[in-house]
Amino acid sequence: MKFIIQRDQLIASVQDVMKAISSRTAIPILTGMKIDAKSHGITLTGSDSDISIESFIPAEENGVVNVEQIEEGSIVLQARYFPDIVKKLPEKTVEIEVDSNLKVTIRSGKAEFNLNGQDAEEYPQLPKLQTDDSFALPTDLLKSLIKQTVFAVSTMETRPILTGVNIRLEDNTLKFTATDSHRLASREIPVKDAIGDLPGIVVPGKSLSELSKILDDTEENVEISVTNNQILFRTKHLNFLSRLLDGNYPETSRLIPDQSKTVLYVKTKELINTIDRASLLAKEERNNVVKLSTIGDNLLEITSNSPEVGRVAEEISVQSIEGEELKISFSSKYMLDALKAIDNDEVKVEFTGAMRPFIIRPANEDPILQLILPVRTY
Amino acid sequence: MKFIIQRDQLIASVQDVMKAISSRTAIPILTGMKIDAKSHGITLTGSDSDISIESFIPAEENGVVNVEQIEEGSIVLQARYFPDIVKKLPEKTVEIEVDSNLKVTIRSGKAEFNLNGQDAEEYPQLPKLQTDDSFALPTDLLKSLIKQTVFAVSTMETRPILTGVNIRLEDNTLKFTATDSHRLASREIPVKDAIGDLPGIVVPGKSLSELSKILDDTEENVEISVTNNQILFRTKHLNFLSRLLDGNYPETSRLIPDQSKTVLYVKTKELINTIDRASLLAKEERNNVVKLSTIGDNLLEITSNSPEVGRVAEEISVQSIEGEELKISFSSKYMLDALKAIDNDEVKVEFTGAMRPFIIRPANEDPILQLILPVRTY
Repeated sequence: MKFIIQRDQLIASVQDVMKAISSRTAIPILTGMKIDAKSHGITLTGSDSDISIESFIPAEENGVVNVEQIEEGSIVLQARYFPDIVKKLPEKTVEIEVDSNLKVTIRSGKAEFNLNGQDAEEYPQLPKLQTDDSFALPTDLLKSLIKQTVFAVSTMETRPILTGVNIRLEDNTLKFTATDSHRLASREIPVKDAIGDLPGIVVPGKSLSELSKILDDTEENVEISVTNNQILFRTKHLNFLSRLLDGNYPETSRLIPDQSKTVLYVKTKELINTIDRASLLAKEERNNVVKLSTIGDNLLEITSNSPEVGRVAEEISVQSIEGEELKISFSSKYMLDALKAIDNDEVKVEFTGAMRPFIIRPANEDPILQLILPVRTY
Repeated sequence: MKFIIQRDQLIASVQDVMKAISSRTAIPILTGMKIDAKSHGITLTGSDSDISIESFIPAEENGVVNVEQIEEGSIVLQARYFPDIVKKLPEKTVEIEVDSNLKVTIRSGKAEFNLNGQDAEEYPQLPKLQTDDSFALPTDLLKSLIKQTVFAVSTMETRPILTGVNIRLEDNTLKFTATDSHRLASREIPVKDAIGDLPGIVVPGKSLSELSKILDDTEENVEISVTNNQILFRTKHLNFLSRLLDGNYPETSRLIPDQSKTVLYVKTKELINTIDRASLLAKEERNNVVKLSTIGDNLLEITSNSPEVGRVAEEISVQSIEGEELKISFSSKYMLDALKAIDNDEVKVEFTGAMRPFIIRPANEDPILQLILPVRTY
């Protein structure tokens, strides 16, 4: 194997693929990165067996030559050193060459690294996804869907299914839902060209977070294919494969109250800042709990009280308050997460009493829904 | 006590003073920040008993009013919450008021925090430095002196005196020296207006690092005063007080070879980059050791070899090599620290054999000296 490659291209691909590589893995060869050289380009692969990432660098693209003098072959390199080496090479091009003893030589300018490689035959084969259940959506929209839901997955392994995001495609509507049983985040979007429905699958939250970091903010499409136990996200030069979580995702629709007793409209940013300040004294001992009280029909008071440290109170004007008076306590962290996920200047918050879950939505009625269970403090 | 203060001024002072406050201290009140209000301005004080920092905010300066409606008094506030509170307040001004029960109210816009304060009478008195031994130097020059030497102090408590920087003023020359017994860094500068000499004192490296972070990069003077066991750095609005280390600093001048067998001149940046690359494979197991060999009279080869991982080699052109051929091994970390401390495009490196300490100086003969002990590898 041999090729000469543009260093910046190689750095970008290496960084993407590294997101799947863990130094703690039961399969030693997975601590390495696989490099495949074919005449049409170079493929880098990393995997921790939950997530696998393939990044492709075409030999030539739009008339620009990325890779030259390719002699086909493959090798696995220790991922611990390779990224730093590539980053610090002195010249704009890098030559990588493997001899018959799996010795790898990396040359750039006058710098020469000789590394011990491993046989690529020993690297596990990634499953080939055979499926017709595929649909596509713009990359930036997929990233929003992830960002607006994934924070609500459970971090506890007691109910593993809740560590994932439920993805469902029905009647050309795609819905992401996440809940840790104290709060819930969901969003729906219409999808064109979906071939058939997708029964609820559950993708590990960690996989989606990593995917979101790798994807650029473009409007180009991501193609999504699903089989029994895998999901594949494919862009022009990237394959991102994740296992699915086993088990039944809970039916969440019945958690969502269908009527409300107090409804308020408030500026998102002001509510975020006020709750952020109130949470300052509520850090550890108080479990981030803050209290919200309505005052008349256009004022809220947000308070927090830590006997040892002190008390904070702030009034905030709201657009409108309709319905019953209300005093309710909740986790400021959950509330801030929910508010930050809503991409709109104004939010609508619907309460059905101090002990019932409440709902936060964008005031423009975009189908984003955030639900939070209050905390009993009386 | 009561005053209304510009929030940005308060934030800056709080951040400076926080550098001296530790949550782990044997004296509980030192986890707090003292606030003194006098008619001419506000003083904030923090201390961990090794370092004490006082920051003064004048009521008025250059016609700009920083503090208004001052009612004199003082209080100690829990430093754990105060900085975050000040940073997140909604308005540009902050009102701070203390009642007779040591309850502190912080108001800004509609936000109001009520905190429990502590009696300022219980806060330890900072020592007043009574001394005539003072001298002044520009702030940016003091910061350079610190940066070019402090990295070489020992981090081991086995010889506590080596955890400090030796500062000496003789015949209007100020000299900073630091060594951990494997390497040494020193720099001299001429000082005007020094009143008498300063026998060698030793200032904890940690104190100087913190001082360096607080000081702005200005040409304004820092005034330095020394007593038996304390050193005070004073700028316009800041007093930085540190204890001195007890004990005799070793005589370092005899460590420095007065002749050399191999002398080379090389571009600083190129040598840094080459050694940085060679050190990539030398991380843990190899203790950062790299090898330098002269080739003829204008080439160096820098190599490193880790049997398990691989080998790296790079040639670098140098301006000149005079004297004997040389192969020498040393810690790449020490070498990089030393080279980065030298503020010149070209360095002169003087060797007296593979097993003797070697010296790095700027090629322009500025009185900066970096000395490194080699590593035995044969």
